[in-house]
Amino acid sequence: MANDKFVQKVTSRDENFAQWYTDVVREAKLCDYSSVKGCLNYLPNGYAIWENIRNLLDKRFKDTGVENVYLPVLIPESLLKKEARHIEGFAPEVAWVTEGGNSKLEERMCIRPTSETLFCDLWEKMVKSYRDLPLIWNQWNTVLRWEKTTRPFLRSREFLWQEGHTLHATYEEAEERTLLMYQVYKDCLAEDLAIPTFGGKKTDSERFAGAEDTYTLEAMMHDGKSLQSATSHFFGSGFPDAFDIKYLDKENKMHSCYETSWGLSTRSIGALIMVHGDDSGLVLPPRIAPTQAMIIPIAQHKEGVLEEANKVLEALRKAGIRVKLDDSEKSPGFKFAEQEMLGIPTRIEMGPKDIEKGEVVVVRRNDRKKITVKIKDLAKKMPKILEDIQNDMFNTAKEFLESHIYEATTMDEMIDLANNKIGFIKAMWCGDENCEDEIKYRTGGCGSRCIPAEQEHLADKCIFCGKEAKHMVIWGKSY
Amino acid sequence: MANDKFVQKVTSRDENFAQWYTDVVREAKLCDYSSVKGCLNYLPNGYAIWENIRNLLDKRFKDTGVENVYLPVLIPESLLKKEARHIEGFAPEVAWVTEGGNSKLEERMCIRPTSETLFCDLWEKMVKSYRDLPLIWNQWNTVLRWEKTTRPFLRSREFLWQEGHTLHATYEEAEERTLLMYQVYKDCLAEDLAIPTFGGKKTDSERFAGAEDTYTLEAMMHDGKSLQSATSHFFGSGFPDAFDIKYLDKENKMHSCYETSWGLSTRSIGALIMVHGDDSGLVLPPRIAPTQAMIIPIAQHKEGVLEEANKVLEALRKAGIRVKLDDSEKSPGFKFAEQEMLGIPTRIEMGPKDIEKGEVVVVRRNDRKKITVKIKDLAKKMPKILEDIQNDMFNTAKEFLESHIYEATTMDEMIDLANNKIGFIKAMWCGDENCEDEIKYRTGGCGSRCIPAEQEHLADKCIFCGKEAKHMVIWGKSY
Repeated sequence: MANDKFVQKVTSRDENFAQWYTDVVREAKLCDYSSVKGCLNYLPNGYAIWENIRNLLDKRFKDTGVENVYLPVLIPESLLKKEARHIEGFAPEVAWVTEGGNSKLEERMCIRPTSETLFCDLWEKMVKSYRDLPLIWNQWNTVLRWEKTTRPFLRSREFLWQEGHTLHATYEEAEERTLLMYQVYKDCLAEDLAIPTFGGKKTDSERFAGAEDTYTLEAMMHDGKSLQSATSHFFGSGFPDAFDIKYLDKENKMHSCYETSWGLSTRSIGALIMVHGDDSGLVLPPRIAPTQAMIIPIAQHKEGVLEEANKVLEALRKAGIRVKLDDSEKSPGFKFAEQEMLGIPTRIEMGPKDIEKGEVVVVRRNDRKKITVKIKDLAKKMPKILEDIQNDMFNTAKEFLESHIYEATTMDEMIDLANNKIGFIKAMWCGDENCEDEIKYRTGGCGSRCIPAEQEHLADKCIFCGKEAKHMVIWGKSY
Repeated sequence: MANDKFVQKVTSRDENFAQWYTDVVREAKLCDYSSVKGCLNYLPNGYAIWENIRNLLDKRFKDTGVENVYLPVLIPESLLKKEARHIEGFAPEVAWVTEGGNSKLEERMCIRPTSETLFCDLWEKMVKSYRDLPLIWNQWNTVLRWEKTTRPFLRSREFLWQEGHTLHATYEEAEERTLLMYQVYKDCLAEDLAIPTFGGKKTDSERFAGAEDTYTLEAMMHDGKSLQSATSHFFGSGFPDAFDIKYLDKENKMHSCYETSWGLSTRSIGALIMVHGDDSGLVLPPRIAPTQAMIIPIAQHKEGVLEEANKVLEALRKAGIRVKLDDSEKSPGFKFAEQEMLGIPTRIEMGPKDIEKGEVVVVRRNDRKKITVKIKDLAKKMPKILEDIQNDMFNTAKEFLESHIYEATTMDEMIDLANNKIGFIKAMWCGDENCEDEIKYRTGGCGSRCIPAEQEHLADKCIFCGKEAKHMVIWGKSY
């Protein structure tokens, strides 16, 4: 079978998940390691996915009043240092520019690891009165953090993301925006990427450097590990106060401002791969897929086959489907394997016999179900077929997520679950960082993922120390 | 008149063009100077223009088979040095990263000033056979060059652009792509930005560092100076050979590859401002304008006015017009001035009397012509009104361009034109760099802009040295 030749390059998911991931990224030509250490080259197939995520998320942002901007790639050291917890968090992992235009700089500048300080610096000059607020800004850019390990989409020194930054007149309004963006991410992940998430607040130790609250959305990968897929931070007035951003209200009284920031990165592509992929390669949800349908003619040398295939191509294109025709010299089996590897949500098989009957066979990538469709109805039926795939992929992922969340009330139970099950564990916690560390250590890496808003009372006591429990926490291993 | 109060902040174009430019950029809130020296903050109004340019140009790219990618922001010094003329051109103006993650780097890396070397480095690993070619790639990103002066959109250390890079099996195919992209830019500038250009090859001294040929598109600003608006470079096999990129043809023979690169940057926003703007501010062509129509109610406190305005808003939105309603408490005169400053192509005035007659008045920003339109026909008529403005703006700019190109056959004539006219001068040239320099010096800055493909034989001799002329060159002052 021609399929085998292509697919044997990919390790089985259940045999070695990490190797499977690397194989899929390579064979689907999504990205590769740059010779610039720690950095990635985003190749056309990978970047096209990012473009689609960007376009869909950007539309959602704009529907909530977000405006896009662009601020510099460099941050002078004195600026980065203005907020104490922030510099403490980021200083060890930045890259410093010390020379420019053939001379040594008076002050070194880092390549932005994130841009809170640049936004605050600009706002300090711009904001005078309540009329200047709120500012609901975002930028799509690249950031750099001096990571020691590199994994495609998951960890690299440079990565692509968006960082939203907003400034508000009141605490409540800023808090509301933090939660609104959390919801925008949750919806985008669910509806566009077909990725169900659970979420809530981060514990103190996992919070963003300088934030009062960090809300996180965590997705479950096929190996049961979590991938933090988006975060929304509430800063209170800490940053604005450190930068002396104040406004005059209607009564001419001076006030503090309140800030938020929120981001989603190319890590989300890693989540797409690890939530939906299978042993034949990538499986992309139709809304994100750069190509939604691949027409693969059978016996294309026979009279009329390519002609009919081209007509179908044209009809689907007109119907707004992102469709391609593979009329190359490769065998159909090879083309099937390639389409499956690339995760194209449907292939449309059409041979002389199908054409005679006025039919094509649509094969769904996610579950390989075949649907026979009259050629004359295809353009009308494709949107529904794609929508069904989108929904089915979300539901499959949701079932997987829900069937891999466990509860524990004793450490023995928890360690047993951590050793013998993949997935997450709900357990009570006292709020002490020491207990958090011990739980992670004793379970072989199940860290606190989040404190969900929907709290359950599993027990009265912290699972580790036995003192009064404050929160139900979701614990898990993570990327 | 309320208008005056707003507009007085902007210097008249003919009084002081440079100051006018600065005033418009500031008052229309397009961008401002960052406290990061030499860098700019692209504010929402400016960035939205860039987004529209990007979307329209990107569509044109993709229609010619371009795929988008993303390569690292950093280039190791050894990589930058691989092509001799390239490093000579760029080394003096790069910024060097020498420390990362708290330790000194073994090899310093620059922030990319352009990415030819990164693409070649990747291609050397990827390209083995004729089956791997051509590669038609592009990236939208930011680059950094250590400029000494800063002017919004025109010159800054960091700027946004796209850089296309392609690799081909033959000289001819690469040359064809160079010219194709030149044409794509010319069309985008003309049809989307309503900017007519003239273009052709750059002289040797003005060529891109490492290129065999640079094709340029030059637009004429209101002050008669030229702004290089896009360039397309043909590299031959110089770069690929320096990076040892070879491919095996069908007969298993080793061959050199041929390369092109091409770019358009946020300078194009500068061109938009200086080609179309007037003493009331920005004038944006409808295809590029983030907002195409601003509804401004008159006597909005009167019953039914805002209600009707909202209906019009909804109807236009449904018709796909990018429309806003200014229902703020400001006076109509102030709103008019603001809409004009922002360059919004039309405003729709509607007061109680208009509404009574079932009409609105559409005022064209470019020439202030008023068109009375029945409310019931507005959604249907707006696309045509906007298209007319788009075409009229292009034609106005074209007339300006064509009426400011002069011819000279003696240096006296040329110096006289350079001193007393704004615009460009056609004159013959022998091809000697020394003459090129002398002409520029003696005319107070009229450098060679390009050698147009459509050559005219104005004289037999070089205008400066009197030796045999090789080319008709277009000369002009420039940004």
